Amino acid sequence: MDLFILVPICAFIGLLFAAYSYMVLKREEEGSDLMKKIAGAIRLGAMVYLKRQYTAILVFMIAMAIVLALAINPFTAVCFIVGASLSALAGYIGMKAATYANVRTTNAAKKGMANAFRVSYSSGTVMGLIVVGLGLLGLSVLFYAFSSFTALTLADTVNVLFGFSLGASSIALFARVGGGIFTKAADVGADLVGKVEAGIPEDDPRNPAVIADNVGDNVGDIAGMGADLYESYVGSVIATMGLAVVASIAAGFVNVPVQNLVLLPMLIAALGIIASIIGTFFVRSSKNESSAIHKAFNIGTLTSLVLTVIATWWLVDTLIGPQYIGVFIATVAGLVAGFLIGLVTEYYTSYERPPTQRIVKAAETGAATDIITGLAVGFESTIWPVIIIVAAILIAANQAGLYGIALAGVGMLATLGITLSVDAYGPVADNAGGIAEMSHQEKGIREITDTLDSVGNTTAAIGKGFAIGGAALTALALFAVYTQAVSLQVVDMLDPIVFVGILIGAVLPFLFCSFAMTAVGRAAGYIVEEVRRQFKQIPGLMEGKAEPDYDSCITISTNAALKQMIAPGLMAIIAPVLVGLTLGTAALAGLLVGSISTGFIVAIMMANAGGAWDNTKKYIEAGHLGGKGSFAHKAAVTGDTVGDPFKDTAGPALNILLKLMSIVSLVFAPIFI
Amino acid sequence: MDLFILVPICAFIGLLFAAYSYMVLKREEEGSDLMKKIAGAIRLGAMVYLKRQYTAILVFMIAMAIVLALAINPFTAVCFIVGASLSALAGYIGMKAATYANVRTTNAAKKGMANAFRVSYSSGTVMGLIVVGLGLLGLSVLFYAFSSFTALTLADTVNVLFGFSLGASSIALFARVGGGIFTKAADVGADLVGKVEAGIPEDDPRNPAVIADNVGDNVGDIAGMGADLYESYVGSVIATMGLAVVASIAAGFVNVPVQNLVLLPMLIAALGIIASIIGTFFVRSSKNESSAIHKAFNIGTLTSLVLTVIATWWLVDTLIGPQYIGVFIATVAGLVAGFLIGLVTEYYTSYERPPTQRIVKAAETGAATDIITGLAVGFESTIWPVIIIVAAILIAANQAGLYGIALAGVGMLATLGITLSVDAYGPVADNAGGIAEMSHQEKGIREITDTLDSVGNTTAAIGKGFAIGGAALTALALFAVYTQAVSLQVVDMLDPIVFVGILIGAVLPFLFCSFAMTAVGRAAGYIVEEVRRQFKQIPGLMEGKAEPDYDSCITISTNAALKQMIAPGLMAIIAPVLVGLTLGTAALAGLLVGSISTGFIVAIMMANAGGAWDNTKKYIEAGHLGGKGSFAHKAAVTGDTVGDPFKDTAGPALNILLKLMSIVSLVFAPIFI
Repeated sequence: MDLFILVPICAFIGLLFAAYSYMVLKREEEGSDLMKKIAGAIRLGAMVYLKRQYTAILVFMIAMAIVLALAINPFTAVCFIVGASLSALAGYIGMKAATYANVRTTNAAKKGMANAFRVSYSSGTVMGLIVVGLGLLGLSVLFYAFSSFTALTLADTVNVLFGFSLGASSIALFARVGGGIFTKAADVGADLVGKVEAGIPEDDPRNPAVIADNVGDNVGDIAGMGADLYESYVGSVIATMGLAVVASIAAGFVNVPVQNLVLLPMLIAALGIIASIIGTFFVRSSKNESSAIHKAFNIGTLTSLVLTVIATWWLVDTLIGPQYIGVFIATVAGLVAGFLIGLVTEYYTSYERPPTQRIVKAAETGAATDIITGLAVGFESTIWPVIIIVAAILIAANQAGLYGIALAGVGMLATLGITLSVDAYGPVADNAGGIAEMSHQEKGIREITDTLDSVGNTTAAIGKGFAIGGAALTALALFAVYTQAVSLQVVDMLDPIVFVGILIGAVLPFLFCSFAMTAVGRAAGYIVEEVRRQFKQIPGLMEGKAEPDYDSCITISTNAALKQMIAPGLMAIIAPVLVGLTLGTAALAGLLVGSISTGFIVAIMMANAGGAWDNTKKYIEAGHLGGKGSFAHKAAVTGDTVGDPFKDTAGPALNILLKLMSIVSLVFAPIFI
Repeated sequence: MDLFILVPICAFIGLLFAAYSYMVLKREEEGSDLMKKIAGAIRLGAMVYLKRQYTAILVFMIAMAIVLALAINPFTAVCFIVGASLSALAGYIGMKAATYANVRTTNAAKKGMANAFRVSYSSGTVMGLIVVGLGLLGLSVLFYAFSSFTALTLADTVNVLFGFSLGASSIALFARVGGGIFTKAADVGADLVGKVEAGIPEDDPRNPAVIADNVGDNVGDIAGMGADLYESYVGSVIATMGLAVVASIAAGFVNVPVQNLVLLPMLIAALGIIASIIGTFFVRSSKNESSAIHKAFNIGTLTSLVLTVIATWWLVDTLIGPQYIGVFIATVAGLVAGFLIGLVTEYYTSYERPPTQRIVKAAETGAATDIITGLAVGFESTIWPVIIIVAAILIAANQAGLYGIALAGVGMLATLGITLSVDAYGPVADNAGGIAEMSHQEKGIREITDTLDSVGNTTAAIGKGFAIGGAALTALALFAVYTQAVSLQVVDMLDPIVFVGILIGAVLPFLFCSFAMTAVGRAAGYIVEEVRRQFKQIPGLMEGKAEPDYDSCITISTNAALKQMIAPGLMAIIAPVLVGLTLGTAALAGLLVGSISTGFIVAIMMANAGGAWDNTKKYIEAGHLGGKGSFAHKAAVTGDTVGDPFKDTAGPALNILLKLMSIVSLVFAPIFI
């Protein structure tokens, strides 16, 4: 237990560093009164949405906690509440930082790109470290409390901790889906009437949906993503702890205390936080060039990765013993696989690479070929991540059994502190661009924020690789723990009930996507109607003499998102419980494997097709094929709009779906037997 | 063996009826010289393509036969060659009939819809009965020959017959993919330049790609579909025979000779042919109304279904014994499931139903929302077929084990003679419309063929249900036989290698779709360039004073299709062999289950999304939302173009892919052990 103390300490250091970054950020200047006013409106809209979202989820959370307390275990209910609350808190703080950072980034851009970059990235750092800090602190404190102050065995302690993961996953799913619907409804709705019908530019202050669109970036791309990765992070750690308890003997660890196997994932994550903090110091650029920023990111991320590898080696050597080098290899296999999947994502979505160039060429012949080719690219891009994850699984399993597979997931997410900070800075730059446009800044400001945004898109690809790969491995580990919990020694696919389960599991991601995409389409329709109404009914709006009613669009998006997130959210929780109760534990095992397989693949397809369509549009807007307003540009805009719910609503939520279904199955295992 | 004689007799009766229908068809008048000329050009293009396609496949077939003869069994090689040759022959005859029927349908339309319907349907009858007749005749003759004139045991006989199925599947995959690429490349290419750029109507004789487009309907929708369903048909029967040998004891048949279990699927199929022939006599309409034709189809199909159910009851009673009513229930479960999946398809693709109406509404706000909603509808539509097939599997397995699951597949396809005839008449009507347009017939003629085409689209939905459901059940049965062939008593998903196999299998349908869609996009690009070139370089073409060079477009489509079909075709054969050799038989079992799950789901998604987009366009073209040329119509045309490779290239080929991978695994099983 000596080393264990490192876990809360590192988590606490992470939180301290987040607080420090937050203060540094707040000291920056906000700029003119108009900028303050716009930023205030965005912040208010985002905060109102987040509070209403949490309120809406609260009912569900309380009901779930009661069910857990009565049907499973009161301690599980406690963990569930803590896990969910900390997730909500992480999303709240991260988003608050982002809504302070956006306008400050706009203002900082007046002094050049390096300056704007520093400000926007500090907000990303807050998000990254709040998420890992709160996640690991909560987990370690609960682990310590249950171990020390209750009569629970080690196995039981880990068991109730799954409630923590369940709480995190539940919040994450609702936050991702709700935020994703909000942001894309406002985005698509604003574009359809503003750009297409009225012919006014993006982020034009005359568009009544423009504030809602910027609010959406914060609630979807920032708060939603934070909750998402918080869930991945704690999920991978807890799943590994679970496998340490149930599968350690099978994996052949002789003379290694089970306790050490349980501690290892927490400690890897803890030292990963320190590695992430050190890495952020390398993310500095004094040059006003996008390539310099790009380079800074790569150096920072690679530094953290290397430090984490070294720390893992030391931990394995100390805790498990040098003869179990396989445990180290398994972790590193996951880490490398995450990095490689990121490279694949970058390859398939960067407009400097052949796949997106194929879509660019297809855009010349219209929207239909742009979309067919984008879908083909998305489909094609799924094969490499599958091969990479398959290799990682085979290596990890060969080196350390199922425990190794789970550790590979921890390896992927150990440097989340820095990879998330890279992910979270992009939407801030995006928002800063919106504020620049609405507050009529000179053209150079917008160009700086656009460049920052596009650098963020590319570097974020690496982060996405870690997130998607980590999700698959974590879900797989949770599946393995589930089979132990329901005492399935064998899950035989020759048993028709298992095959039936696989088929049901395989279809659920498709159904889930249909819910999400339908919700976006429907909510966007409401926005379209409202914007059209305002254009028609508010005199002087188009001439810039009158102000639109921004609030009504925010309210519409908020209500639509909160209403439409319920069906997909409940589906994720009800489907496994229903199958477990009616078709039995073997069918449920099949369901999990089916959903992990197709969920992983469809998530990659959607992320990559969406990213490639987006960058096709960006490439044309940079002046190729006739630039903005050309035939090819119109085709690319249509493709990008189709990709919006792919990459920002349905796709990212799939990662959560497959883990949530696994953890639900695991936590509710006692009632299925 | 007494009843066995019914099999070749019924198959022969089917062929006689096809020959009779063929003669009746040829006696019809062709119409004017211009019509003859156009029809002759289409027929020639189609025949040239088919011959070149078969020649291209021949090399592969010979290589495969040699490999089979040397590595597996010379008898397997013989079955492979016969299975492949009969498939080619069925496609050839069916397509020849269709190319005679198209112009005769145009001409018959002068005397009203009922008359035109009779002619086009007689061509569908030829196709339907040639496919089932040749399939069952070949199978039964080989079965008899091996049983009587060789020393092979019953089990060995069935074993070498899998070669027949492998031959059928190989031809089917190439024919479906090649034909699908041809037809959609010509269709998309013709539309992009003709409709969008030059602003001339569909099937305008000034469009150089118009003949290629009509050739495409024949080689893709007729010859390709024929090979496809021939493969499904023989595959389901042979898979059941295989399970009868390996799984009969496990299923608990006491005092039932294995031979009878082997004969049952052949006999059900045989009596299904007679039921289909009887059913076709009810497909008659004297009224010139689409509702009357619709009704005639439904009566014909239902008659065949009921007769097949009765025949199955008698066969089970006689061959297996009345105490095994479960065998009957399993077969009927499949038959009912196929029908229900068809109803779901109809519900999701008919423009009179809510799902397609949602797309219609989305088309009002443009192509992007049309496509998002269409994808959402396609995704949503997958849940019901999964539930239906799951129910069928559970019932069939509960009643008669794995043998029951396979029999359910036979039940689904027993009435193929009539369901395929309904499927195959639609493209003939489509072609007739093209000929009417090109030969400048009065408007009413085109209206009649359009109505026939659209009735065909709806009624064909039922046929698609049987095809997709039958594919899943057959592949599942083949998978079960495979596990027996490689002596896997258990396929445990907790073994990482099995999960890895599932993941690889799950991604293959996506990769396959990407190949197919990329091929269509690329080939359509060549057509676009050629049509643009002709518009530019042939003086007087747009004024109708000069004739375009139709042949060059046919040649381009032919070459592109033949070249691009190779990669997806080889993937289907190489992937399972590679996984079997490198990762072993358990991983390969996982691969099959993974590919069946996602292949089934993606196939349904693509078929339904494509159909719904198509009918959205048709609904608007019927005069709603501003009709042809309106903003909504343009959006719907874009959606339909995206759906083209979904529903006519990638989607239908997936059915074959999953069966081909199963049969490849099964036939090559000896080299994996």
